[in-house]
Amino acid sequence: MTIETLSETSCFGGRIGFYRHASSSNNCDMQFSVFVPPQAEHGKVPVLTFLSGLTCTEENFMVKSGAQRVAAELGLMLVSPDTSPRGEGVHDDPDDDYDFGLGAGFYLNATQDPYAAHYHMYDYITQELQAIIFSNFPGDQERHGLTGHSMGGHGALTIGLRNCTTLHSPWGQKALTYYLGDDQFAWQDYDACEVARRSGDVTKFDSILVDQGAADPFLAEQLRPELLEAACKEGGLPLELRIHDGYDHGYYFISTFIEEHLRFHAERLSD
Amino acid sequence: MTIETLSETSCFGGRIGFYRHASSSNNCDMQFSVFVPPQAEHGKVPVLTFLSGLTCTEENFMVKSGAQRVAAELGLMLVSPDTSPRGEGVHDDPDDDYDFGLGAGFYLNATQDPYAAHYHMYDYITQELQAIIFSNFPGDQERHGLTGHSMGGHGALTIGLRNCTTLHSPWGQKALTYYLGDDQFAWQDYDACEVARRSGDVTKFDSILVDQGAADPFLAEQLRPELLEAACKEGGLPLELRIHDGYDHGYYFISTFIEEHLRFHAERLSD
Repeated sequence: MTIETLSETSCFGGRIGFYRHASSSNNCDMQFSVFVPPQAEHGKVPVLTFLSGLTCTEENFMVKSGAQRVAAELGLMLVSPDTSPRGEGVHDDPDDDYDFGLGAGFYLNATQDPYAAHYHMYDYITQELQAIIFSNFPGDQERHGLTGHSMGGHGALTIGLRNCTTLHSPWGQKALTYYLGDDQFAWQDYDACEVARRSGDVTKFDSILVDQGAADPFLAEQLRPELLEAACKEGGLPLELRIHDGYDHGYYFISTFIEEHLRFHAERLSD
Repeated sequence: MTIETLSETSCFGGRIGFYRHASSSNNCDMQFSVFVPPQAEHGKVPVLTFLSGLTCTEENFMVKSGAQRVAAELGLMLVSPDTSPRGEGVHDDPDDDYDFGLGAGFYLNATQDPYAAHYHMYDYITQELQAIIFSNFPGDQERHGLTGHSMGGHGALTIGLRNCTTLHSPWGQKALTYYLGDDQFAWQDYDACEVARRSGDVTKFDSILVDQGAADPFLAEQLRPELLEAACKEGGLPLELRIHDGYDHGYYFISTFIEEHLRFHAERLSD
């Protein structure tokens, strides 16, 4: 497993870098970014992986969130993967929309042709990328948190709980039909609400923190946090859902609240 | 003077917005962005204008710097203008390079055809934009600071001192020849080193803070902070020049050090 360094520079006393490698899960080259905090000079540090939303690459979070400042204070390594396989031969949305195909891997393993050939983001995030991170960077494998935004926030929930709910949004319905087929039973492993509802074995979570902007244009039709709230209640999961007036779906929302998510994880990942 | 609101949303408890207006200085439509901190609900606040570097628009600083967090803490309004006139009829670089023409206004008033028709960024920044800001936003006209990066850091120095040094860099030589003609005497008003050298009337500056990355690829040929250092010494100006190992020219450098620049200005702009 060799990785190619695309760029590296200093940032808040640590190092930010962009990397490329041949992915066996996705059967194509993949890129990711890593911020190594200055504390890593003295030993392994906990790792927080951020899963991005629709249309994003490995770059958006590192460029726009400002999270490196707090990560450098807390001694957290940050990892930001791309959101789908890419390159020649990777099938995109037949309608060329932004909400499916390239930039829209939904953190699942596709079973339907032609997507099954490359779209294995679930395996990529849960297995391959972890192996690469922990063999190439000074991260502590025993202390690894997961967070994200939009499609990536959902991905963090499904993967974090065991897998996670997209059944009730048009985005999710489109992607799951293409990637997994018409049988909605097969969708349940990748639906945060379904997973939360049946989660008897997730007592290791002392809490799940979800922030949501009240001025988010996708709130009523696509995001529907009330479904997650009901499912967590049913499954006995300790969800803290916070609604913030005036905030929309964009990166100013993320940059405003990311600090609290980093502190949330750092507290739980401390030695 | 009417301005059109392109977008507005919440950010760190304040509001970030993007606006467009017809510019009489540049004879075209111009766009700018403003962050209004939450303290503005209780009265006028000091303003810090950030001038961006080559290729940037009014968006880069607001999206990438993370400066809103500290501005919201300090009660500073942030203003980020575009870096050149744009639109139909605005002449670009004849060679289509990034270092002249669109996105490269160098914060001067062009005197040479065909650029003299639109490229009046000096008047735009020092007069027109200020009038718009102070008549449309709750900024205190008596407390207004100026900062920037790269071409914009130079612009902040020339405008801040009275005007500011590009004579000694290939970027500056190209732009000044096209915008101002071959007579290098005419360049001096827009050269930070020349202005600094002859500045007897700048005692109102108790200090000038300049940060520079030691791994910046433009350092030796284009940026040459040692010339500014010598000129400030000659002109009796209190320059604090800090060189930071490992940092390059990019936005990770800006996001790392912008907090100290905001605190520097807020301290000097306090009531």
